[in-house]
Amino acid sequence: MIKNTKVNAAILIIGNEILSGRTQDTNTSTIALWLNSIGVKVDEVRVIPDIQSTIVNTVNKLRKSNNYVFTTGGIGPTHDDITAESISKAFGLKYEIHKEAYKILEAYYKPSEFNDGRQKMVWMPKDANLILNPTSGAPGFNVENVFCLPGVPSILKSMLGGLKNKIVGGEPILSHTISLRTVESEIAQSLTIVQNKNADVEIGSYPFFQAGKLGVSIVIRSEDKSKIENCSSEILEFVGKKKIEVIIKN
Amino acid sequence: MIKNTKVNAAILIIGNEILSGRTQDTNTSTIALWLNSIGVKVDEVRVIPDIQSTIVNTVNKLRKSNNYVFTTGGIGPTHDDITAESISKAFGLKYEIHKEAYKILEAYYKPSEFNDGRQKMVWMPKDANLILNPTSGAPGFNVENVFCLPGVPSILKSMLGGLKNKIVGGEPILSHTISLRTVESEIAQSLTIVQNKNADVEIGSYPFFQAGKLGVSIVIRSEDKSKIENCSSEILEFVGKKKIEVIIKN
Repeated sequence: MIKNTKVNAAILIIGNEILSGRTQDTNTSTIALWLNSIGVKVDEVRVIPDIQSTIVNTVNKLRKSNNYVFTTGGIGPTHDDITAESISKAFGLKYEIHKEAYKILEAYYKPSEFNDGRQKMVWMPKDANLILNPTSGAPGFNVENVFCLPGVPSILKSMLGGLKNKIVGGEPILSHTISLRTVESEIAQSLTIVQNKNADVEIGSYPFFQAGKLGVSIVIRSEDKSKIENCSSEILEFVGKKKIEVIIKN
Repeated sequence: MIKNTKVNAAILIIGNEILSGRTQDTNTSTIALWLNSIGVKVDEVRVIPDIQSTIVNTVNKLRKSNNYVFTTGGIGPTHDDITAESISKAFGLKYEIHKEAYKILEAYYKPSEFNDGRQKMVWMPKDANLILNPTSGAPGFNVENVFCLPGVPSILKSMLGGLKNKIVGGEPILSHTISLRTVESEIAQSLTIVQNKNADVEIGSYPFFQAGKLGVSIVIRSEDKSKIENCSSEILEFVGKKKIEVIIKN
């Protein structure tokens, strides 16, 4: 399989509970770390409310500008779960009972338990591909490059493994972190020089407080290991000259 | 002061570290909860990379469709801190030394400490209004309806208080939560009936796991207390009929 070197993705978090601040989103980080490991770079994240027209418009925009789109939330049994219907509309597909999903949930629940609420979860865009759910039965699905996952973090996590064969990434994005006992302003100028000399490498600088002490993590990211190593030694050179303590390199 | 009843905002998280999954964003929830309390509803959140053109285009889009925009991140001393310059460009303003900010940092640091890196933090859009920073000196700023805050959560939190007089909200958005010992599918149909009868109230349903037990939180949101109370009693009515245990009401 030929790998593209640049594969990008957008994450679309669907849910009023994130916008209200009631719930802290953790799915972005989970999905982004997993995508990085298979060579897909997240270019954009959006959080939008449970409004059909907003979901339809946003999905239709993002799926054209990204190799992959991952949605989270809104595929449960209640009235505010409108992702599957919205995706159907976005693609102009019929919203209907998915026979395979029906069979899965019919087998998963006792007959008396497979009530109307649960049966709502088998309604999907016509011919959607299922994403199996090893935690709680109800599958996610994808239509073309749009992958719809649940909002509950533990369930979402358990479903990513089953996605691996459906996502073709580029070269994995490698990351190297150098944590220093310093403050950003002490290294800002030297770091700018390294960044300017290595324009195609992503160098980030992140202050932190740990056990009452200040520090800075420099994160170097690239698909090319030798470029990371080169930046790293240029950084360690000025760090040495400035006699700044290196706390961690990894 | 006349209050609008609907005041909306967008949050724009600027930072590669969130997109890579390395850092878990917590600022969205902090800002959203605070905005809710002063009657501003967050309609959209976006996370974008440290790329000037992306920041400029996104800010220019969001500031037209929202009463307020809050950016986080990218106002520190390093090369990847490009928010102030990008905002200048978005508004067509000169990017220059802000005299008041310069005085603040000149007084905050010892003369030997006020180095080039730190002096970068006083470069802002011409005539920007400062947002004072009681934690670490370097102020944020706003231009018209765009408010630029730092990315470090503890610093950001400490700056929100100083913003209160600059933001004019509508009626505070009230929220009432009813947590039940049940699963979503058991209440989905009854809840849909309540939602349909109260179309202008936002009713969300959120499953949770706590101490090994399943539950569902129903969150009712509105600016109108009587509408919330009405929904709440309709929900408690079907909950009682179904003999579902109420864990918490608040």
